[in-house]
Amino acid sequence: MIMGIRVAIAGPRGRMGSEAVRTIMEESGMELVAALDYKEIGNNLNELGMFPEHYEIPIYTDLKMLIEATAPDVFLDLTTPQSVYEHTITALKRGVRVVIGTTGFTAEQLHDVEQLAKTQRTGALIVPNFAIGAILLMKFSKMAAEYLPDVEIIELHHDRKLDAPSGTAVKTAQLITEVRESHKQGHPDEHETMAGARGANFDGIPIHSVRLPGLVAHQTVLFGGEGQLLTIKHDSFDRKSFMSGVTLSIRKVMEMNHLLYGLEELL
Amino acid sequence: MIMGIRVAIAGPRGRMGSEAVRTIMEESGMELVAALDYKEIGNNLNELGMFPEHYEIPIYTDLKMLIEATAPDVFLDLTTPQSVYEHTITALKRGVRVVIGTTGFTAEQLHDVEQLAKTQRTGALIVPNFAIGAILLMKFSKMAAEYLPDVEIIELHHDRKLDAPSGTAVKTAQLITEVRESHKQGHPDEHETMAGARGANFDGIPIHSVRLPGLVAHQTVLFGGEGQLLTIKHDSFDRKSFMSGVTLSIRKVMEMNHLLYGLEELL
Amino acid sequence: MIMGIRVAIAGPRGRMGSEAVRTIMEESGMELVAALDYKEIGNNLNELGMFPEHYEIPIYTDLKMLIEATAPDVFLDLTTPQSVYEHTITALKRGVRVVIGTTGFTAEQLHDVEQLAKTQRTGALIVPNFAIGAILLMKFSKMAAEYLPDVEIIELHHDRKLDAPSGTAVKTAQLITEVRESHKQGHPDEHETMAGARGANFDGIPIHSVRLPGLVAHQTVLFGGEGQLLTIKHDSFDRKSFMSGVTLSIRKVMEMNHLLYGLEELL
Amino acid sequence: MIMGIRVAIAGPRGRMGSEAVRTIMEESGMELVAALDYKEIGNNLNELGMFPEHYEIPIYTDLKMLIEATAPDVFLDLTTPQSVYEHTITALKRGVRVVIGTTGFTAEQLHDVEQLAKTQRTGALIVPNFAIGAILLMKFSKMAAEYLPDVEIIELHHDRKLDAPSGTAVKTAQLITEVRESHKQGHPDEHETMAGARGANFDGIPIHSVRLPGLVAHQTVLFGGEGQLLTIKHDSFDRKSFMSGVTLSIRKVMEMNHLLYGLEELL
Repeated sequence: MIMGIRVAIAGPRGRMGSEAVRTIMEESGMELVAALDYKEIGNNLNELGMFPEHYEIPIYTDLKMLIEATAPDVFLDLTTPQSVYEHTITALKRGVRVVIGTTGFTAEQLHDVEQLAKTQRTGALIVPNFAIGAILLMKFSKMAAEYLPDVEIIELHHDRKLDAPSGTAVKTAQLITEVRESHKQGHPDEHETMAGARGANFDGIPIHSVRLPGLVAHQTVLFGGEGQLLTIKHDSFDRKSFMSGVTLSIRKVMEMNHLLYGLEELL
Repeated sequence: MIMGIRVAIAGPRGRMGSEAVRTIMEESGMELVAALDYKEIGNNLNELGMFPEHYEIPIYTDLKMLIEATAPDVFLDLTTPQSVYEHTITALKRGVRVVIGTTGFTAEQLHDVEQLAKTQRTGALIVPNFAIGAILLMKFSKMAAEYLPDVEIIELHHDRKLDAPSGTAVKTAQLITEVRESHKQGHPDEHETMAGARGANFDGIPIHSVRLPGLVAHQTVLFGGEGQLLTIKHDSFDRKSFMSGVTLSIRKVMEMNHLLYGLEELL
Repeated sequence: MIMGIRVAIAGPRGRMGSEAVRTIMEESGMELVAALDYKEIGNNLNELGMFPEHYEIPIYTDLKMLIEATAPDVFLDLTTPQSVYEHTITALKRGVRVVIGTTGFTAEQLHDVEQLAKTQRTGALIVPNFAIGAILLMKFSKMAAEYLPDVEIIELHHDRKLDAPSGTAVKTAQLITEVRESHKQGHPDEHETMAGARGANFDGIPIHSVRLPGLVAHQTVLFGGEGQLLTIKHDSFDRKSFMSGVTLSIRKVMEMNHLLYGLEELL
Repeated sequence: MIMGIRVAIAGPRGRMGSEAVRTIMEESGMELVAALDYKEIGNNLNELGMFPEHYEIPIYTDLKMLIEATAPDVFLDLTTPQSVYEHTITALKRGVRVVIGTTGFTAEQLHDVEQLAKTQRTGALIVPNFAIGAILLMKFSKMAAEYLPDVEIIELHHDRKLDAPSGTAVKTAQLITEVRESHKQGHPDEHETMAGARGANFDGIPIHSVRLPGLVAHQTVLFGGEGQLLTIKHDSFDRKSFMSGVTLSIRKVMEMNHLLYGLEELL
């Protein structure tokens, strides 16, 4: 009897984690075999009152014991940076593939993980952003800028967001600068009659940040060329948008025997 | 035999003017009876080589003679501010209604025109912007801001435009401030990690200016509310967008017996 | 001490109702004084476990007793059509203004309510759609179609929606037909090489329905004119989008002494 | 002295051709060395009155003579299908690379051209669509559909277009079906209360065609996933949008020694 990929998850009670628990339980070709929590909260997910009754998944507080007892194929870590490095080393040493949803490794730690994955010939995937649509937007933006190098970015978020521009907007601009020659856009003599009108400037690429109640998380990238405009937009309405990236990562890491950073390379 | 509204046009060779000549010639319910030019260029539009052969419309260099000879109902002036005031007075004194497509009157001149229109009980319409879609966008923006007072404006133009933000964007913001209480938008503690990201600030309304090759003239106004977003957008692809405003003005001025400034009041 | 408008709410445990409870409790200038439920569920909202502890609002199962005991200014009914007519009559007879969030009155019932509101000189507001943005979209669409009569509607919803086109799209089209002459749009000889490409036809207005996972509820109305395009779009991301319409209705009904159907007339 | 790529152009008086003449004359790294016309119209482009005075480019009516006299690196053919096959054979036999902007080859002719390009080790590029933005839209759509397989296409054109849906929309749908499993989208039990609302159906992908005055040529592809939406849009405002594709083709064909069909493969 084939039960599919055996997955263990760390952080089952968090926002992302609890969503991932539900997703993996319902995904065909996958099986949730264990959960890891940092403190004693019960023996089984169905005791927590936050999942359906039939989610009979054992909870461990020690990763080594979890691996021994449930032999997962993939260890999915959605916890905070504090514990994730140790988890990763522990899993890889035992030949368990890892999908890590947090950033925050130091360069040295990253190097260690890379070496260990290589030695163990075991897949490891670090994923700062699971939203496939957002990853595609960035990937396409980089590709488009090679042919339509005049670009502006508009990112729109709810008005509880503190900083502007968003991290994704900056990262998109960064990717674009890798493929286009740096140049000043707009009219050479253009001037702002009101400061800020032309947005923030990232190596010549204007970034505009909109903050309004009602909005969730959106980004538009505009590419202008003679007589034409190419627009790529991503709307993230809900945390669920991350889940297809989670299951994709689990599937992909099964075929890998080394470390990869970001879903970009896999799409 | 009803021939429709008799129209005379000043500035038939200009960009707007030549388009207006064609529009009026083809519009049902209207008749082009004369053209006014500031210098001797010929006796008839069909001699100029820029219109179809059958445009047999006499050209005058003197407005009084034009009015005497052709008795227009409406005088449409699409010339520069230099001559437009004199034209307006001349026409109104003879009971000819005027539609004026240029701004540039002094306050005193405007007062004179207003008084003369009233005394003569003759319609006069000054129209800084003939694009009906743009007028509607401004009108709707003002109405929407009363209920959804958190607003951001994005205006997008070709990259040969010198100044930012655009006049229409500023005027839209101005209209909005008339109906909403001034307030700071976004998170109270929001901060730009890159200057300009949050745009220009018009009494709390951010204005963002995009400049790209390929674009023509576009404006988007975003209204955010809890759980919702209302968007009003106008795209101007072509000078032809002004022509429906021209014919509307001609029709409307026939029913007026005073001065009106802007199409806003008529829509 | 001024406590603001005293509001009683029927249906406090429903989707809309529970959201409205929270909204009114937090709204300044308003006070929630009582809730009406159709069955015994407790004496007080804070016993239900679905609201914050300090929501100490008494629950009644009889509207007459509720009115006698708590003297509300406005009775907000978010229940089903079954009970709403009786509630409305009971409240109006006692001089309590009503805001009704359900449709489903018969023509005769509607007539009765109208008469009673008039006799009692008491405001009554029936609101099929509380989303202010959606109401504005419809209102603006009707206004725009007078000047730009070539229109197409695109409505976009999640893929669990059964019927197409949406009720709001049809209502928008209907409003547009009230102000424009019926006419065939597109090329006189246009033909579909694949059936359905040009959408559903409502008196000449094409309506296109998009259904995709991830979407919530969105509608775009496009107005084309020579050289220009006017676009009005509404995105509803969340049930919260109805709440500003609820509080607006409560405020407006305080100034009314008759029946009004729909928020359109108030905006 | 390096003068750049020597280009000869067939069809210099056509809409595309005359735009291409201007583009190549102004492009750095390229040189227009000759024009081919099917009839005697003059010896030189500057005699035609449609180009600037200094466009002193000789015109030939015989391609062999043109090649002998001016030794072009690339022959750009923007004429009609009638003559293009013969031109292509003539050029390739003499080792002149070809860029062909018309379709209309028979399968047999295509085979011949392919063989000849291979034997001569000479680049040949057939380009049905020079608009780089449109090509990118199609390429990205195919890539995105692999991860977000629920797709709808909206194409928007001026109301003088006869057929719906557009060729580009159909081709985009076709490309998408190559990478996704055929499946019914929307609710399994969805039904149209008005026929056509859900658009044309291309192997499960709905295509919606909008036709309005003012529009030019636009296409939007929507990809829905749980909690997210990815949108790719292309606006073509002007024939100039083809010109960057023309110069790109000329540059790319210099590095090729075989036949390629479509710009897709080069981007």
